[in-house]
Amino acid sequence: MSAKADLKLVRSLHQKKYRDAEGLFLVQGPKLVAELLASGWPVRTLYATEAMADRMHLRDAVMLPPHELERMGTLESGNAVVAVVQRPAPLPVGAMHADELVLALDGIADPGNLGTVLRIADWFGVRRVLCDRGSVEAFNPKCVQASMGAIFRVTVHYVDLAGEVERLRAAGAALYLASMEGRNVFSEPLKRPAVLVLGSESHGVSAEVRALEARTIAIPRVGAAESLNVAVAASALCMEFTRQAGTP
Amino acid sequence: MSAKADLKLVRSLHQKKYRDAEGLFLVQGPKLVAELLASGWPVRTLYATEAMADRMHLRDAVMLPPHELERMGTLESGNAVVAVVQRPAPLPVGAMHADELVLALDGIADPGNLGTVLRIADWFGVRRVLCDRGSVEAFNPKCVQASMGAIFRVTVHYVDLAGEVERLRAAGAALYLASMEGRNVFSEPLKRPAVLVLGSESHGVSAEVRALEARTIAIPRVGAAESLNVAVAASALCMEFTRQAGTP
Repeated sequence: MSAKADLKLVRSLHQKKYRDAEGLFLVQGPKLVAELLASGWPVRTLYATEAMADRMHLRDAVMLPPHELERMGTLESGNAVVAVVQRPAPLPVGAMHADELVLALDGIADPGNLGTVLRIADWFGVRRVLCDRGSVEAFNPKCVQASMGAIFRVTVHYVDLAGEVERLRAAGAALYLASMEGRNVFSEPLKRPAVLVLGSESHGVSAEVRALEARTIAIPRVGAAESLNVAVAASALCMEFTRQAGTP
Repeated sequence: MSAKADLKLVRSLHQKKYRDAEGLFLVQGPKLVAELLASGWPVRTLYATEAMADRMHLRDAVMLPPHELERMGTLESGNAVVAVVQRPAPLPVGAMHADELVLALDGIADPGNLGTVLRIADWFGVRRVLCDRGSVEAFNPKCVQASMGAIFRVTVHYVDLAGEVERLRAAGAALYLASMEGRNVFSEPLKRPAVLVLGSESHGVSAEVRALEARTIAIPRVGAAESLNVAVAASALCMEFTRQAGTP
């Protein structure tokens, strides 16, 4: 490919339309590219400045001058390495393990929030996150970067959320719905396997999800804030699920 | 003031230098301005489009056309109301209440993260947050907006962090330091009053703070993520402090 064609392809991957069409996405910056390489995900092309290729001991990187790399990526400045990566094929959700916790996100729209939730999931050992089909795409560059590498370890499934969650419940999972009006989570014995549903900040959860047979659980509020964002709520609730599970 | 002088003053308050010089800061958008008005904080001037002034029943607002208001503020689009607000005079930290939890942030640089921590503090009933003097300013517009109004309820003290925290410890507060190498917080009886120190993501805590006599506590990691951001860590730890305190 010519340098110009490379630039055009990579820049097209800033947009979901082209990520979908090509089945590719971007991973940027030395820290995240290092995580990518450690993960073994299939890399299509690596672009780097000569200095960064040396520093990272990269083989087969396409060398570009710094200003070309900056134009390629989405990061604000000093972007010295960009990987074009093959998007994994979607997998069916399948069955849950006996002690598994799955997060289900309804209507998450901000890519930074989704990336932060994936990082939280990764920390607390949650391996799978379900999103409804209208949610922001996990391979959005902002989500990939905010995930700090969790994108390579946590599987995101885009599904008919109410249908899939109901299927898991019917198969034996306990179903929890985070809600300000719920029962204090500290008084709730949290069973496993479990699906924890979190709504979006602006719209809550959809009518279909609300209609499911779930226990509603709340993060106790001591002060006056009106709400918590979805990542902060995920962190607080994963903390209590972890405590009650007695892990690790 | 002429419309031009107003615009110049308000735009100058995008920068810390002028916020410091004038003792003023900005509050923007209907939701946050409504919280401001409810809080009773002293407003110097309200600017609004005619439609927004009508909708919010604002008295004494300086009416401006929409394009002027957009130029005034820092929000991305549709900014229809901006308040210029007097910054409160700094207060001494003083003594702690018997069951109080104070957060101490060392080296927090991102205004969005600080705002999110304030919102978390507000949720969990934490009334005071200490920051070292090198931290980002709480009246930065990004922090104000991210706090979702918590800025009006949670007091931020800029202090010599190690000195102030040591003073609180000597006066009887239990001192906890969040650290990946700490003891599993679930095995730690959390006493009150307590000061919980959180370091910045990039630099951890300073040598002076590390030298204090603190219990180090960790959020148990089940999975593989390398770290959690300061707001997510604050949420998880405030959750456990709240649980152990048996509040509410």
